[in-house]
Amino acid sequence: MTQQFANRMYTVQRSFVREILKVVDDPSIISFAGGLPNPKSFPVEEVSAAAVKVLKESGESALQYSTTEGYLPLREYIAKRYSKYGIKADASEILITTGSQQGLDLIGKVFLNKGDLVAVERPTYLAAIQSFGMYEPRFTDVKLQEDGVDIEALKHTLKADPKLFYTVPSFQNPTGITYTHEKRKQVADAFKDSDVVFIEDNPYGDIRFMGKDLPPMRRYMGSDVITMGTFSKTVSPGMRLGWLYAPRDIMDKLITAKQAADLHTSYFVQRIVYQYLADNDVEKHIKKIQGMYKVQRDAMVSAIERYFPEGIQYTKPEGGMFLWVTLPEALSSMKLFDMAIQDKVAFVPGQAFFIDGSGQNTLRLNYSSSDEARIEEGIRRLANSMNMLLEEKKNDIITVKR
Amino acid sequence: MTQQFANRMYTVQRSFVREILKVVDDPSIISFAGGLPNPKSFPVEEVSAAAVKVLKESGESALQYSTTEGYLPLREYIAKRYSKYGIKADASEILITTGSQQGLDLIGKVFLNKGDLVAVERPTYLAAIQSFGMYEPRFTDVKLQEDGVDIEALKHTLKADPKLFYTVPSFQNPTGITYTHEKRKQVADAFKDSDVVFIEDNPYGDIRFMGKDLPPMRRYMGSDVITMGTFSKTVSPGMRLGWLYAPRDIMDKLITAKQAADLHTSYFVQRIVYQYLADNDVEKHIKKIQGMYKVQRDAMVSAIERYFPEGIQYTKPEGGMFLWVTLPEALSSMKLFDMAIQDKVAFVPGQAFFIDGSGQNTLRLNYSSSDEARIEEGIRRLANSMNMLLEEKKNDIITVKR
Repeated sequence: MTQQFANRMYTVQRSFVREILKVVDDPSIISFAGGLPNPKSFPVEEVSAAAVKVLKESGESALQYSTTEGYLPLREYIAKRYSKYGIKADASEILITTGSQQGLDLIGKVFLNKGDLVAVERPTYLAAIQSFGMYEPRFTDVKLQEDGVDIEALKHTLKADPKLFYTVPSFQNPTGITYTHEKRKQVADAFKDSDVVFIEDNPYGDIRFMGKDLPPMRRYMGSDVITMGTFSKTVSPGMRLGWLYAPRDIMDKLITAKQAADLHTSYFVQRIVYQYLADNDVEKHIKKIQGMYKVQRDAMVSAIERYFPEGIQYTKPEGGMFLWVTLPEALSSMKLFDMAIQDKVAFVPGQAFFIDGSGQNTLRLNYSSSDEARIEEGIRRLANSMNMLLEEKKNDIITVKR
Repeated sequence: MTQQFANRMYTVQRSFVREILKVVDDPSIISFAGGLPNPKSFPVEEVSAAAVKVLKESGESALQYSTTEGYLPLREYIAKRYSKYGIKADASEILITTGSQQGLDLIGKVFLNKGDLVAVERPTYLAAIQSFGMYEPRFTDVKLQEDGVDIEALKHTLKADPKLFYTVPSFQNPTGITYTHEKRKQVADAFKDSDVVFIEDNPYGDIRFMGKDLPPMRRYMGSDVITMGTFSKTVSPGMRLGWLYAPRDIMDKLITAKQAADLHTSYFVQRIVYQYLADNDVEKHIKKIQGMYKVQRDAMVSAIERYFPEGIQYTKPEGGMFLWVTLPEALSSMKLFDMAIQDKVAFVPGQAFFIDGSGQNTLRLNYSSSDEARIEEGIRRLANSMNMLLEEKKNDIITVKR
């Protein structure tokens, strides 16, 4: 049989990160490559108690088909939680999704015609490129600075009239960068008279372990924004439970798309997570996660300060799970990867997060899935590889000069 | 904000069936409209035990991110179960999906360019039209006969070179029709030198309560087929757990599409369902479901035989959850719906299952979600409405004649 796949399948690649993760599956490798939450943070016993309770009290209902929109008490819980940022959300504006990854797919489905322009950050979350890419848009990107997106570049991009602007304003994957309060206001201002749909992906917002908490962009923007959320970083990623928060006219289309995509997200999972949220002190649990990640982040920053050679730049995130490293421009992080993997330490070369394959001198480090000892040892090894690479480069230059 | 949604969102409608289900939400209505499995068949206690066991033995792992392909032991279980039909499936050919509805979406994503031709049965499963419709194909349909699809019509349609042919060969939704052994052979023969991708949706295959069991089309067709399966009808629909069984070259593309759609299906759910399957006598459980549905189906057929007026045709399914009724051609099932709902009984008017809005004199009845007493009473009321409609029609004709 000669299959003729759809055109989109010839342009979209499998996730480079996931392919790398397969290479580093060897447990003897210290991996800063993945994006896994620390499993020690998972509320295993509490989830077990919630599962037993749900099945005992309403087992037949919890195992039956349910509505596309999702379990109403869970949607009400999510809507209510936004009030801590002064945001008045209504349950009718919340759609439960199979992880926030599905949110990306549904947004692509609802908005994108082939050839539409999508603006993302530079660098951006890889899986967003993948999901949107399935709908065959063109991509453009807007440079990230230390305090958030470059406003002048953003204004310039908005003039090209993209359909969507996709951003992770808090503890971004891959850079760990967070938009400041001032930058958030400026961004909201730039979108004031714009028809561009603002997509705020906020998986890490709750995982702030230092600095002053900031409201989601939704608070700054008024109503013209879709905010994506998830329980992956606060309860469990394996559950696959996220949500979209969107104005009702958009929500109506998102529900139609969701219905066609999987009817509804596992109702069993929705019921259990809601029961867990209702029966436990979730804020205390989140504080515990923040504490764990702070220790892990500090261990990595401290080791970097001690081991990395001069001339290497890196972010110092106040939350989330990632730290971003920039090598001197002439150095290749792919080459560094090849060296480091020999020494049994892994990371993700940064070019995976650029729409045009640039960023060849950048890399992403994850600290949430290694303990302090492994972070220390891994950074030491990585620094060794960096020194080797620098040495090699110096010799290259000398060779060229001769 | 003036949103500009993608073109696909202006052609695809929300599910008519789901809209009807909202109308009949009133518990005083006897509803044959839904497609819900009998919740009394759900193994609530066994699932609870499985959940506790999984979380106790490997909680941190069960709540963590996992692979796109799905939990390997579950995929092995599914592959192995096909052997009872003499089909040699390998776990590498199985992809776990968020219900079989997601299978439809992934197939559409992998194969369909805008304008491609998709062939379906006439009538067909509504949600397939919805899912495929998101990729903006053209549709054509092939008439169903009592013993399966019309072979001459199928051959004619294949000449138009559709990209896909979508079929539910066993206890079809909406008609309850099952392809005979002879018909299955003829269909396989018609596809012998064809490039058309054969999509076999088999949610009800296990729920045969009378007649001789038949292998899936996969057994007749060789390897050039995608078979969709689900645990919705044998374990729990609310879990949202299904699978695609496809040749490896197609599987590779399906995995890429799945990754972009939701990373992976709830790993927590996969682990629990696998534990349930491993620790229980599943075949015995399925026999129990068959027994329940046989009683419900018999109650409906028997009531129809006693109450329905002459000239009404209906199928007598040997499995599954649906029965299909054909009124005399001049009668409208939408009109019947309006009458019946006054008398607190509901069904789905058949035209929802036709790609061109025809089938106006047909309707679908579900028997799996009502007990015998309600089936008896509901059919009695429905028969009353039919008699009223026939009477009205007779008067119309007399009026016209005058």
